[in-house]
Amino acid sequence: MNIINFNDDQFGLLIKDQIFEFTHHCQSRQLLHAVEFISHQSEVQLSNLMRSSKPIALDAVKVNSPVKNPGKVVAAPINYKAHILEMQENGQAFGHIITDIKKAGLFLKAPSSVVGPSHGIHQIFLDRRTDHEIELCAVIGKRCKNVSSDKALDHVLGYCLGLDITLRGPEDRSYRKSIDTYTVLGPWLTLPSPEIDPENIDLYLSVNGQARQETNTSDMVLSLRELIEYASHFYTLEPGDVIMTGTPQGVGPIVPGDEIYAKATHLGEMKVSVWDGTQHV
Amino acid sequence: MNIINFNDDQFGLLIKDQIFEFTHHCQSRQLLHAVEFISHQSEVQLSNLMRSSKPIALDAVKVNSPVKNPGKVVAAPINYKAHILEMQENGQAFGHIITDIKKAGLFLKAPSSVVGPSHGIHQIFLDRRTDHEIELCAVIGKRCKNVSSDKALDHVLGYCLGLDITLRGPEDRSYRKSIDTYTVLGPWLTLPSPEIDPENIDLYLSVNGQARQETNTSDMVLSLRELIEYASHFYTLEPGDVIMTGTPQGVGPIVPGDEIYAKATHLGEMKVSVWDGTQHV
Repeated sequence: MNIINFNDDQFGLLIKDQIFEFTHHCQSRQLLHAVEFISHQSEVQLSNLMRSSKPIALDAVKVNSPVKNPGKVVAAPINYKAHILEMQENGQAFGHIITDIKKAGLFLKAPSSVVGPSHGIHQIFLDRRTDHEIELCAVIGKRCKNVSSDKALDHVLGYCLGLDITLRGPEDRSYRKSIDTYTVLGPWLTLPSPEIDPENIDLYLSVNGQARQETNTSDMVLSLRELIEYASHFYTLEPGDVIMTGTPQGVGPIVPGDEIYAKATHLGEMKVSVWDGTQHV
Repeated sequence: MNIINFNDDQFGLLIKDQIFEFTHHCQSRQLLHAVEFISHQSEVQLSNLMRSSKPIALDAVKVNSPVKNPGKVVAAPINYKAHILEMQENGQAFGHIITDIKKAGLFLKAPSSVVGPSHGIHQIFLDRRTDHEIELCAVIGKRCKNVSSDKALDHVLGYCLGLDITLRGPEDRSYRKSIDTYTVLGPWLTLPSPEIDPENIDLYLSVNGQARQETNTSDMVLSLRELIEYASHFYTLEPGDVIMTGTPQGVGPIVPGDEIYAKATHLGEMKVSVWDGTQHV
């Protein structure tokens, strides 16, 4: 089941390319309330909802990030083996220690950097290299602290794609990766179901039609459940927090005018435009 | 003027050691609404408020962080020259690049790590070194992006003290410094006034009565106004965001059972206990 946030913070159920809006049924315009409402509907109630709601075409709406104002955006720096090698080889490490993830720790991205796919990336520092990084993301649904990996997925509200846009350079990761619009989440939230295994999702990213990143999440060093366990031993994970699970090999530069295309098994696809952010002051 | 958040998220005006509560006048239990209310009161209205409110003794309440759920907690890594030398000499750098701050960038701490002085620090990873770092903090009151240093302080809601509690080790700063309770803000928010110059505030910290950190904010590498300028060229600063301006020399270890005492000119003083956080799971 896919929950989409669109236009002016409205929520809808996405069936194929049709949106059935249910914003007015939610306690507030928070993703958590949207999921709470929809997951309490019986099949009959869902059918009624769809019959009584005029469907809206997906390609006619502005697609927002499924989650707004997350408390934390937690990200994994070096979680695919081939990406670690690539970082060492192409000189993009800038002296940052590239070792194993339990030594590197996780890092934070600013909640203010989050946008949806229709907003696009407003690139600044045009004289420096800026890279795309595709990632599997999970939104936390239930507070957890010191959770074990076998219980970790019980705390996940749903999944989406993420682009961790990264200015290369010597500054702290949490600074370079927190520029406004440098965290694209979307295209919608896919609720957990038996057929969705976060350890077996194909990820694909192209720029202007040229394939750049292609992997399966089975290649991750720490799986999503292990990342949640690890993070929750440092801090409490709260509803709405986002876990970005790290990017695979194929990271490459973007420039204004580019169009990024990203897709994942079960999670959908999105096109994200790169704009000249120095023109959007 | 000092605005205190106490007990169950109540707001009061602090005059000497007496609190005059005004929670019921605020639009919500958000610091921004508390400051909005109090700054619109005339002197006569303030006198009336104090006459109609039964004062509460400061030492009888639980003192919370003045700001709750900030969007971002932005911190400066190496912003006092003597502290940079100290980090290089005592081997606490763990391979992290210690250069000038514009190369190091700023970093983020998790909003979920914020507590008030009465809550205390719940220390975990007891086999590793954990340090106290006293800092001047500013809470942002007005959204700003690409602001110049000469206009930066117009966007400050008020000032407080902060303890940036830091687990030493190889992990990313934004991870080691984001453990629950590792950001202590308090004792209250002091509103800007002509006599408060953020570039001339004495900071003092002791542990169990022994002086550890003592400086004046005039020794900072980048002043608060320059930090706000720098940060706002990377991302939008939003109301409620916290700027921690970096710690001076004298950083040292803490262990459960310690009592930290911190004070600053104009901003008050606070005692913060260090607890064994492995007992608070």
